[in-house]
Amino acid sequence: MKKNVLIIGAGGVAQVVAHKCAQNNDVLGDIHIASRTKSKCDAIIASVHDKKAMKVEGKLEGHALDALDIEATKALITATGSQIVINVGTAFLNMSVLRACMDTGVAYIDTAIHEEPNKICETPPWYGNYEWKRAQECEEKGITAILGAGFDPGVVNAYARLAKDDYLDKVTDVDIVDINAGSHGKYFATNFDPEINFREFTGVVYAWQGGEWTVNKMFEIGKDYDLPVVGTRRAYLCGHDEVHSLAKNMDGADVRFWMGFGDHYINVFTVLKSIGLLSEQPVKLADGSEVVPLKVVKACLPDPSSLAPEYEGKTCIGDFVKGMKDGKERTVFIYNVADHKEAYNEVGSQGISYTAGVPPVAAAMLVASGEWDVKKMANVEELAPKPFLNILNKIGLQTCIRDENGERELHFD
Amino acid sequence: MKKNVLIIGAGGVAQVVAHKCAQNNDVLGDIHIASRTKSKCDAIIASVHDKKAMKVEGKLEGHALDALDIEATKALITATGSQIVINVGTAFLNMSVLRACMDTGVAYIDTAIHEEPNKICETPPWYGNYEWKRAQECEEKGITAILGAGFDPGVVNAYARLAKDDYLDKVTDVDIVDINAGSHGKYFATNFDPEINFREFTGVVYAWQGGEWTVNKMFEIGKDYDLPVVGTRRAYLCGHDEVHSLAKNMDGADVRFWMGFGDHYINVFTVLKSIGLLSEQPVKLADGSEVVPLKVVKACLPDPSSLAPEYEGKTCIGDFVKGMKDGKERTVFIYNVADHKEAYNEVGSQGISYTAGVPPVAAAMLVASGEWDVKKMANVEELAPKPFLNILNKIGLQTCIRDENGERELHFD
Repeated sequence: MKKNVLIIGAGGVAQVVAHKCAQNNDVLGDIHIASRTKSKCDAIIASVHDKKAMKVEGKLEGHALDALDIEATKALITATGSQIVINVGTAFLNMSVLRACMDTGVAYIDTAIHEEPNKICETPPWYGNYEWKRAQECEEKGITAILGAGFDPGVVNAYARLAKDDYLDKVTDVDIVDINAGSHGKYFATNFDPEINFREFTGVVYAWQGGEWTVNKMFEIGKDYDLPVVGTRRAYLCGHDEVHSLAKNMDGADVRFWMGFGDHYINVFTVLKSIGLLSEQPVKLADGSEVVPLKVVKACLPDPSSLAPEYEGKTCIGDFVKGMKDGKERTVFIYNVADHKEAYNEVGSQGISYTAGVPPVAAAMLVASGEWDVKKMANVEELAPKPFLNILNKIGLQTCIRDENGERELHFD
Repeated sequence: MKKNVLIIGAGGVAQVVAHKCAQNNDVLGDIHIASRTKSKCDAIIASVHDKKAMKVEGKLEGHALDALDIEATKALITATGSQIVINVGTAFLNMSVLRACMDTGVAYIDTAIHEEPNKICETPPWYGNYEWKRAQECEEKGITAILGAGFDPGVVNAYARLAKDDYLDKVTDVDIVDINAGSHGKYFATNFDPEINFREFTGVVYAWQGGEWTVNKMFEIGKDYDLPVVGTRRAYLCGHDEVHSLAKNMDGADVRFWMGFGDHYINVFTVLKSIGLLSEQPVKLADGSEVVPLKVVKACLPDPSSLAPEYEGKTCIGDFVKGMKDGKERTVFIYNVADHKEAYNEVGSQGISYTAGVPPVAAAMLVASGEWDVKKMANVEELAPKPFLNILNKIGLQTCIRDENGERELHFD
């Protein structure tokens, strides 16, 4: 049984995490938020109080922290008495925060894979380059470290496990589909930091097919998916974190990740990339000074958090899991539909931040209760999926299924 | 009778001017090239010697000059004994170079209208904001100042005058059409300095119609033109220098300028402009530093002079002049077709630079011979067109006509 949560980061996802921790602080205890910029923590805290989100009276405090500084992070963990760290800062921080948790003996939860600033799209499986190198040490020390516990990766990993446990005898294909059918009303914007967002798409695309890693180019392979609520949408084979753990944990099934893009997004992306404006390498201007083009593009685009008030429409994210059941081929689609406007009304963030920020709080609640306090490093599909999906049903992300019997909610009480 | 030429500028157009002056140095005398960066003058001089372009033995020298410095320019004019200045530097220099010519009593020729760096698309007629304010003083002092003597403005002004003199009793419409059907093989590039190039299209579009200035947006009005050699091409109503003098000098006829753009160019331009990347106003980066997005785009795009070796295809630029002849409606199309590869083989520049750089040399030859040494300020349509077009026929830009009798060359000997 663990309690008291330290949230690392103060962006759009951290705002959702803070609100959801506050709504469940009877289970989670004290809440602390740490970011390089303390004023961003304070703004989140003000927003939590505005919405009267604290379930019971309790601590909610902000702290200035450079989370690359392991000793400073350890000191803050100790000073705040935190037993669970939810890392939703930039992807460059994971290994430092994980180290601090391992050294202080507390639980670690994140929502995205570690990245190094100067490297794009490393050798698969990506987890093997960083996090999994600490797995043995976590087990020896009894450290609970839950990797990729956002929506995708995270909830979609639990969906894959649920399909394998309950709906199929043997899984042959996992196709994760992420569609944002919402509209922010701007000419062009990214849903999170443009620097991190574009990095996802400027490298090659890895999938796990036929027992090996396959390589494609971004936007090379597209497919129309007919989905609940959002209708028919075109999605493209992309690289994504969860492919790199499911490839290991789904008994050899093919694993692919598909993200929906409209023609307009692809066009803008293609123009910017072709001209060289998405490059993370500096160019020299006529006056001799140097500047990184991607940073200029970022400065010209809307701040992702500014999109929330006007964002409308829904997201649909889920897994098509295909295999054999009772000797016959079967496909189930397990999914969630979220609404941008409802997310904004509840926690002041748009739907993309909401779907990413709610699941790590559910994971923290399961660590607090002991159900997921597994004393080792684990990806989400290695953990019991029903307690996780059960909490998500109750705190804002309903799991649904579509199969030969139609579409319906799934309940796990 | 004047001689000895000082060329201001050392870009792609200046290279053409230098080659053409060298090929006609029996008429023009000494040739001097001045630029802020003397090494660029030296490169042009080396190219002239490579091609053995000097018709007779004579002076060809480079000089470092900041042409915004009027006293320095006057000193160079005097020191070199130049009696004709061809200004093909940036459009920001015109008024300084013109002043230096007026003070030293020498002839001035340019190819584009004056611009101030921080102003885009000023009140029409554009010449009224700068050059024409010096017209009275030029006349009083007997200074020959020929404005806009490139291709467009320049040759197209002479075409309009020729149509009015020889082919129509009354002109009602002048539609200038500029089509570059060439291909440089790059994803995207501008044919001259991106900073100046994009400035032409980021403001509003002025045309002279029905006796008044009309205003449209860029790419708002498109029209398919069926043209000699290049075939059917889509052109868009644009703002351009020559509209602003022809509006005054064509007895009230409508004057419009149309430039051809492919869908790809328009798409890239629209994406960059919509995101704010064509802005000349600085944006603040995440680290607090400031940078002008347009300068970063310029740094990412190919250097226009680098396009020349691979440039293939043709340009077609001309005037559809419509009016009444012998009581009936008549339209003539007077035009030139130029070839990128031929231009490169002759003078080491692409076709766009070639069509812009040959005409001011023809104008200089007419000033040297006295025919255009008019001792006042003049736009090209105010001068006798046939001597100008006759020289152009001989030095690389053949005038053609298409009318009810078909397509044919025009000769003026």
